[in-house]
Amino acid sequence: MKTDDRYERGLKKIKEIYGDAWDVGFLDDISPEFGRYTVDFLFGDVYNLETLDARGREIAIIASLVTMGNANTPLKIHIHGALNIGCSKREIIEIIIQTAVYAGFPAGVNALRAAREVFEELNIKDKT
Amino acid sequence: MKTDDRYERGLKKIKEIYGDAWDVGFLDDISPEFGRYTVDFLFGDVYNLETLDARGREIAIIASLVTMGNANTPLKIHIHGALNIGCSKREIIEIIIQTAVYAGFPAGVNALRAAREVFEELNIKDKT
Amino acid sequence: MKTDDRYERGLKKIKEIYGDAWDVGFLDDISPEFGRYTVDFLFGDVYNLETLDARGREIAIIASLVTMGNANTPLKIHIHGALNIGCSKREIIEIIIQTAVYAGFPAGVNALRAAREVFEELNIKDKT
Amino acid sequence: MKTDDRYERGLKKIKEIYGDAWDVGFLDDISPEFGRYTVDFLFGDVYNLETLDARGREIAIIASLVTMGNANTPLKIHIHGALNIGCSKREIIEIIIQTAVYAGFPAGVNALRAAREVFEELNIKDKT
Amino acid sequence: MKTDDRYERGLKKIKEIYGDAWDVGFLDDISPEFGRYTVDFLFGDVYNLETLDARGREIAIIASLVTMGNANTPLKIHIHGALNIGCSKREIIEIIIQTAVYAGFPAGVNALRAAREVFEELNIKDKT
Amino acid sequence: MKTDDRYERGLKKIKEIYGDAWDVGFLDDISPEFGRYTVDFLFGDVYNLETLDARGREIAIIASLVTMGNANTPLKIHIHGALNIGCSKREIIEIIIQTAVYAGFPAGVNALRAAREVFEELNIKDKT
Repeated sequence: MKTDDRYERGLKKIKEIYGDAWDVGFLDDISPEFGRYTVDFLFGDVYNLETLDARGREIAIIASLVTMGNANTPLKIHIHGALNIGCSKREIIEIIIQTAVYAGFPAGVNALRAAREVFEELNIKDKT
Repeated sequence: MKTDDRYERGLKKIKEIYGDAWDVGFLDDISPEFGRYTVDFLFGDVYNLETLDARGREIAIIASLVTMGNANTPLKIHIHGALNIGCSKREIIEIIIQTAVYAGFPAGVNALRAAREVFEELNIKDKT
Repeated sequence: MKTDDRYERGLKKIKEIYGDAWDVGFLDDISPEFGRYTVDFLFGDVYNLETLDARGREIAIIASLVTMGNANTPLKIHIHGALNIGCSKREIIEIIIQTAVYAGFPAGVNALRAAREVFEELNIKDKT
Repeated sequence: MKTDDRYERGLKKIKEIYGDAWDVGFLDDISPEFGRYTVDFLFGDVYNLETLDARGREIAIIASLVTMGNANTPLKIHIHGALNIGCSKREIIEIIIQTAVYAGFPAGVNALRAAREVFEELNIKDKT
Repeated sequence: MKTDDRYERGLKKIKEIYGDAWDVGFLDDISPEFGRYTVDFLFGDVYNLETLDARGREIAIIASLVTMGNANTPLKIHIHGALNIGCSKREIIEIIIQTAVYAGFPAGVNALRAAREVFEELNIKDKT
Repeated sequence: MKTDDRYERGLKKIKEIYGDAWDVGFLDDISPEFGRYTVDFLFGDVYNLETLDARGREIAIIASLVTMGNANTPLKIHIHGALNIGCSKREIIEIIIQTAVYAGFPAGVNALRAAREVFEELNIKDKT
């Protein structure tokens, strides 16, 4: 499978935002093309659009995943990403609370539980 | 129905973010208490939490409403709000695109149509 | 298409709960079997189970439709049904509000608007 | 964090309906304000509205959570609550079945499995 | 915006399946890149994967849109597409019915109404 | 509980499509009538409609369950069923990918993980 500029650009973006929290080969055994789309389309194309900053993108993604109420695996990766690019623990909590009034309290509680797991894994103790 | 600090605080916030695009009395004839919750709980309490800025809140709300795929009335009001607090037309479009890869293409197309209506109403022609 | 006991039982139940608000032939031109399932399965079987009363059934159905956020046509029919079997206007409003904290504020506002239309059609003015 | 009447009223209502099945401090370590909203807003305000009885509220909440299809933790707590205020095991099963024809069979099966876990924990064997 | 093979391949596929029912420029005024993704990613990449036939793809897409319950604009375009590639009116009705038992009766009724509109537009009268 | 033709017909269909992967008595302890509906209504009635073939039905069901994003237990059973009636491993992967662009990437990844589990259980190694 030949890589192209989109793929390289996407790979660079993923490393920049998520570091080791994102394993780009996670679908290689079952669907390498779907794995490749996550790199070249999601990050090489969409995430690389020029106007919205990474902070805005991570807020949008986290809010979307909170709203689904059942997407905790990607939610946790994007909370990692948001912390990596400078969002504070407290900002992430408020993104979840703000989303919860639109998506409902159960979606909010579910997401706070996922966030707690990430904070514990990373041993983030500060309140802000 | 006695107002309290939460209500006044919420009302001030709503005027600040949405201006005339939000009619606080929109549920007075059918459920004044639900209307009051939107003021005192959503804006007096949640939106007034101190750490996340208004820009982050509007991005989260827009992404949540895009994800639902069926909430165009509030989506349009929050696009108004995001424009009011300084988001550009182009940033809003990219928030929708970024969310669409998580929520699916039909949700993205639906939201772009709602955004187009707001931009036309406000006669926003610039590309950025 | 031969009717059986389930069909007759379902038809009787529909007339009893919804009166003229339910047109049992509404799918005859496109899918008569799906129309028949709504009579014999939904009402002949499920709605006729013996333990839960009709009031409990209508509350459950309304809450489910409020949660979907996009099912206003059936939602309005079931608000009619709930009124027919003795729920008050105010009870229906509180069913919607109670559901909205779980399903999110946009779902609540959407359902209150649907309810308002039913109350106006029926010219129900009382507060309770 | 100062409590007010809403908080005390909510706390009393939670104890009355759920007893020990609800831990009001479940979010204290990550988001005490979201935990407080569940007490003062969900129960001090909404659940305390005067017209709809607790039975109607629990039916609406259970139906909403069944419809989501992915909210088994709160679903189990509300099944506890419904049993506490006098709903029978069989009524709860019929609430789930009635909701399932609107929310789909997978949502119904998922909820029946959650209900089975509650009945087993409480050792409720009776058929009604 | 330079086209590449993916774009040409996607465009050819869209014309082949949907003919005039798909306007590839439908987002040009608001988000030309999102419009381009629908051509090069959805059709140049995904739809062009080699193993699943077009009939299988249209069934999957229709079932997904029926399940959402609120995506009637794309649903109608894909019903057009399915008819174009040889699905009968009756097959489409049964795809909807089969999906409805998983997605719920309201989603089924909503989709049958959308299908009826397409059949009327195309003046398809036959039962099969 | 007397069986009728619908029940026998449904039972035969279930055995034919799913073999041992479907336990028809899976709800006997909690709701035998809901278990019976899955046999007589889902398979005796709906699945037995004459025009759409079993392959089309399994594609529709899989796409619906992928779209929900939270229905992995039934999704895995229907992947078993699709394999039993002649769908290849690769076709199932492409059904999931095709659906994912409509339902969103998280739904796609979730379903690929469920499919991987089925393929591993059945020790299906071939690429097609």
